[in-house]
Amino acid sequence: MKTIDVCMSPEMMHLYEVHDKTVVVVDILRATSCMVTALANGVDHIIPIADLEECRAMGAAGYLTTGERNGETVPGFDHGNSPLEYTANMKGKKIAFTTTNGTVAIAKSAGAREIIIGAFLNQSAVKAHIINNDNDVLVVCAAWKGKVNLEDTLFAGALIDSLGQHVSPDNDAALIALQLYRNAGTDLVAFVNQSSHVRRLNRLNIHDDIRFCLTTDQYDVVPVMKEGRLTVV
Amino acid sequence: MKTIDVCMSPEMMHLYEVHDKTVVVVDILRATSCMVTALANGVDHIIPIADLEECRAMGAAGYLTTGERNGETVPGFDHGNSPLEYTANMKGKKIAFTTTNGTVAIAKSAGAREIIIGAFLNQSAVKAHIINNDNDVLVVCAAWKGKVNLEDTLFAGALIDSLGQHVSPDNDAALIALQLYRNAGTDLVAFVNQSSHVRRLNRLNIHDDIRFCLTTDQYDVVPVMKEGRLTVV
Repeated sequence: MKTIDVCMSPEMMHLYEVHDKTVVVVDILRATSCMVTALANGVDHIIPIADLEECRAMGAAGYLTTGERNGETVPGFDHGNSPLEYTANMKGKKIAFTTTNGTVAIAKSAGAREIIIGAFLNQSAVKAHIINNDNDVLVVCAAWKGKVNLEDTLFAGALIDSLGQHVSPDNDAALIALQLYRNAGTDLVAFVNQSSHVRRLNRLNIHDDIRFCLTTDQYDVVPVMKEGRLTVV
Repeated sequence: MKTIDVCMSPEMMHLYEVHDKTVVVVDILRATSCMVTALANGVDHIIPIADLEECRAMGAAGYLTTGERNGETVPGFDHGNSPLEYTANMKGKKIAFTTTNGTVAIAKSAGAREIIIGAFLNQSAVKAHIINNDNDVLVVCAAWKGKVNLEDTLFAGALIDSLGQHVSPDNDAALIALQLYRNAGTDLVAFVNQSSHVRRLNRLNIHDDIRFCLTTDQYDVVPVMKEGRLTVV
């Protein structure tokens, strides 16, 4: 049976062997929720870029410049980090995307056999992709500036729970994530409202974003990283 | 109100500011359980040493050489890493102690206002120490070779739960630990038996150790680090 493990912060990525694994990168609030939404709405491809100025420079190459730093929109960028901005009117566009945590997690997953993008919004699509594939799995939580966070760990647990007998949790981080999800109850918004990140984001008035990012299975797409670009499988 | 946070692995210690904090180092299986037991049984002091050969060399200076590597006793050392070895016949002795994870966690806590040693065995003593002190608190989990583990995170949650209104969880790792403990049920041995570390240790036949290390409040001592040595407060 394939194994599944969870890296709760990119700061621990050097401890994980990924060359033979499917890595699922998760940044629920809000990078991977944006990426899933954008590609489901017909964006041609996304280039995730850890460095802000490098991202800005992509504007000259015909890319929409998007993302955030410390939870706030970047001055001069075309769009921020709210998935509600990534609507159907972006169809066919190319996006350069940078964030505080999510794009770092993608960069640190380099070398994996496969890198895909997970969020509650495409949970069942990610589940199906993992089942229809022989690779062992590592869920990489983007966390917040390196520190473990509630919402990414919760999604890791939700994914493992949904996979049931298809996977075997490989290590304690996977067990902790699973326990967290199973005890969270059905109101994920209320549960995640405890988190320090949400308390930070509440100051930025993004309640609608949070509710949307915690909605499961809005989109049947699995963004996959190939040659530096995210496209749908 | 004082804050409490949890660093789930020493790999994330560089993200935490400790100079104004009480750091509680936790390695339930089994370094900090041994340290608490040894000092409760009258050991004069313990020198925790991350490097194995440096620890071995302390034998010539009149120290008992103790500890483990990868869960196994070190050839030529006086004692291993079972708390059941640290009995009353060690009274008055000096101990040099090295382990795979616990002594690394102590070394990485250098610079804290205060470093104390926590385990289920002295949980209430640690609780009282924190309450009778104005410092904010960081619980540092020794983890297993850098990866988050179940038993140390569980203890972090148990400690936060016992502190109740005396502390405010500062970040999501503290909330995750607290959730984990509150949902673990009363049979901690059964809960921890799920962990990968326990599965490793089971192969080494140490069921008695595990049961002992998960027993609360056997000892009313708080080991504190001063000038490189652990003694009781």
